[in-house]
Amino acid sequence: MGSAYKMIPIPEAQAIVLANTRPLGAVTVGLAGALGRVLAKEVLAPDSLPPFPASIKDGYAVVSSDGVGEYPVVGESRAGHLDDLPVQPGTVAYITTGAPVPPGADAVIQVEDTEPLPAAGEGGQRRVRINKAARAGQDIRPVGSDIMQGDVVLRAGERVGVAEVGILATVGAVQLRVHATPKVAVLSTGDEVVDPATRPLGPGQIRDANRSMLLAAAARAGAEAVDLGVARDTAGHLEGCLAAAIAQRVDVLITSGGVSMGDRDLIKPLLERQGVVHFGRVWMKPGKPLTFATLELPDGDGPAAPGRQMLVFGLPGNPVSSFVCFHLVVLPALRKMAGWAAPALRRVAARLAAPLRLDPERPEYHRCTLQWSPPPPGSPAAAAAAAVATAAAEPPSSPLAGHELWAVSTGNQISSRLLSARSANALLELPCAEGTLAAGTLVSALLIDDLGGMPVPEGGVPTTPGF
Amino acid sequence: MGSAYKMIPIPEAQAIVLANTRPLGAVTVGLAGALGRVLAKEVLAPDSLPPFPASIKDGYAVVSSDGVGEYPVVGESRAGHLDDLPVQPGTVAYITTGAPVPPGADAVIQVEDTEPLPAAGEGGQRRVRINKAARAGQDIRPVGSDIMQGDVVLRAGERVGVAEVGILATVGAVQLRVHATPKVAVLSTGDEVVDPATRPLGPGQIRDANRSMLLAAAARAGAEAVDLGVARDTAGHLEGCLAAAIAQRVDVLITSGGVSMGDRDLIKPLLERQGVVHFGRVWMKPGKPLTFATLELPDGDGPAAPGRQMLVFGLPGNPVSSFVCFHLVVLPALRKMAGWAAPALRRVAARLAAPLRLDPERPEYHRCTLQWSPPPPGSPAAAAAAAVATAAAEPPSSPLAGHELWAVSTGNQISSRLLSARSANALLELPCAEGTLAAGTLVSALLIDDLGGMPVPEGGVPTTPGF
Repeated sequence: MGSAYKMIPIPEAQAIVLANTRPLGAVTVGLAGALGRVLAKEVLAPDSLPPFPASIKDGYAVVSSDGVGEYPVVGESRAGHLDDLPVQPGTVAYITTGAPVPPGADAVIQVEDTEPLPAAGEGGQRRVRINKAARAGQDIRPVGSDIMQGDVVLRAGERVGVAEVGILATVGAVQLRVHATPKVAVLSTGDEVVDPATRPLGPGQIRDANRSMLLAAAARAGAEAVDLGVARDTAGHLEGCLAAAIAQRVDVLITSGGVSMGDRDLIKPLLERQGVVHFGRVWMKPGKPLTFATLELPDGDGPAAPGRQMLVFGLPGNPVSSFVCFHLVVLPALRKMAGWAAPALRRVAARLAAPLRLDPERPEYHRCTLQWSPPPPGSPAAAAAAAVATAAAEPPSSPLAGHELWAVSTGNQISSRLLSARSANALLELPCAEGTLAAGTLVSALLIDDLGGMPVPEGGVPTTPGF
Repeated sequence: MGSAYKMIPIPEAQAIVLANTRPLGAVTVGLAGALGRVLAKEVLAPDSLPPFPASIKDGYAVVSSDGVGEYPVVGESRAGHLDDLPVQPGTVAYITTGAPVPPGADAVIQVEDTEPLPAAGEGGQRRVRINKAARAGQDIRPVGSDIMQGDVVLRAGERVGVAEVGILATVGAVQLRVHATPKVAVLSTGDEVVDPATRPLGPGQIRDANRSMLLAAAARAGAEAVDLGVARDTAGHLEGCLAAAIAQRVDVLITSGGVSMGDRDLIKPLLERQGVVHFGRVWMKPGKPLTFATLELPDGDGPAAPGRQMLVFGLPGNPVSSFVCFHLVVLPALRKMAGWAAPALRRVAARLAAPLRLDPERPEYHRCTLQWSPPPPGSPAAAAAAAVATAAAEPPSSPLAGHELWAVSTGNQISSRLLSARSANALLELPCAEGTLAAGTLVSALLIDDLGGMPVPEGGVPTTPGF
């Protein structure tokens, strides 16, 4: 008895998913809600920055041709407080960082290159000694030197990070058009699946790891996550849960369990009845029963309204399979919905820290922890590092040469063992083949977590020579 | 006129900050609030997983010594529903993935290797043909093979990522002891600084980029961020803002502006009066006036209560300086408070995509965008890549050889130009020296953003050969 579904390769599955995924429409958010969102519309600068010639230093605004000497201080230009006077040759004005350079002055002398003098007799006029001559324009930012009025400061499709929040504030863009973020429902299935708080477990029961994990994964991807609980193993109950997802107008439903070959695996038949199942088996390890469907739904706003679409990802019940399938196929779809132009996982290369046995039946996504490390002394990789330093004309002693990403396996990869995803920041792409890859082999790796928290090798990572 | 503060190197500044930063105490959170937090206490497994010998496949539980043949199906073991009968030699039981293997059976035959038979005459007994013999233990996970009762599944100090949420749910750990997250107040300073919504700007005014940016940065670091607005340039107003931060019991106050050499730069004198200023100038570009102080505060719970501490970071007013100083010194402190064992920014090496002029006066943190790319054809780096592939005995055609992190500068690095932080995911550590570093030079880089969104090179990144 075989499956009714053709086994397709994972790149084909990913292409099918993305071809059926549409970026969500634009919504308006305030600046405080913009972090992590993708701009749906370019942002222009309404004025130049600086809007006036601005001092780069605290010091004195001078006429550069005056040179070294003692000068009367005829006024002040402070950020936010401007004396309304020009600086004539033979005079200077006190100025603070960021303040407008008064008319007449064409350079700023930093305070470190000056000395205060006793006030002159007549009327107590402040005086200062200028100890260094300035060239014209010194320590002045011309109008528009940072941003010109009308410049596109951020393009549609750019993601708003920390710096971009500052850039938006700088140009007064406090209301922004960004892509909506997807609303994602998560449903577990199975009569044996019980709430994580259950202690002790009854006969045959297991705690639901997938729902908490997938809700966290969806939230981390910036989605609005909706908890749909656990569906029992009856067609009716499962159908009720699907109806709940539809009623809540979610963009995506993620189920786990109920997609293998068992006679109570009800997800695929249900999706066949209510929508289009695009694939039901994928040639990958783990995750073979991965299922993807789309449902076209009436909008509920009358017959003239265009329909809406719900994507359904039927993930396998084993928690590692769920974890891997989420990252490989669901996350890129969520990113595309949220407006990412390049939604796929980023691929890098890493060297194996230890030999890995290959699977002869399916390509494998092996969980690992990447870290930036020197090659083990005496290894082929160490010899290679020396060779690369020579060929690249690196200083022979460059402590940076030879450091690379090294992949440390998370251990036993059986798909029920979620500990194999603990601390994993990448999935290694291992070919379907007999045999073993040697330690030091270069393999491709897909990033599934921030490398900002990766392990630090003993002794740390060296800096640029001379830094 | 010089500064009263000694200029210290950045590693010394970072060490001083971390030496004065204490991890926050433990609090209890539910599983749904655990993502991103650091465990303050190890988590043990209260029971084994699987708690029973469990089937890895949908199929039939058999006595392995029976071998190929036709057998009566005497019962079912479904996940969540168990018939209470042993499997005798000469019989089999239907079983689903994850379900307990009934007593007597010692292997599972996947359904793909079986054929249903017509029910036998007498009483309609179900029958099945087993087409492949099984070895003992086949497709069964023994009790505790994933997790043993009493195992430490996560250690104190581990951060809770997506997989860890699943692991915690698996072992029923729904209430967790984690480090508290810091409460961080952000204050801008300066009479010229106006709200980002201001349009058009008045004479001498600039919009406040730093406050929105630092609030976003603190939030992204997992902190609870408190907006304290803008302090005017008077000692009284600034002191009032500091009092507000103290009253709100924040762990950290971040100010921007008011720390350079101007005579209205009031931050340092205020901090000197109310606490200990540990440093007030750092040998770095940008960020020279960076200031760090600690305030010991009464706890308000009576004279016997231990005091509490507030860290104050006085960042420069230029937005890029603020951005760089936040990542280099504030972020590691926030991470240490939140329980990170290794709070420093992660360092990697990258090759320069274009020549970079060095600064002869200060070491520079040059903003750049890292991407994983092949070396430019014909470049020394390309020759080096060929050499490394040979020395490492890489298959000569390995498409992975020679790809490295390449650093693309964000352009003009003047500290007022926040566009130089746009899309930046790393800070290059450039030595203080005369001259220029050539394209292809290997330099150290500190990660300041997730590489999961880095640019993808034209043509993409290749996979492991054969994948």
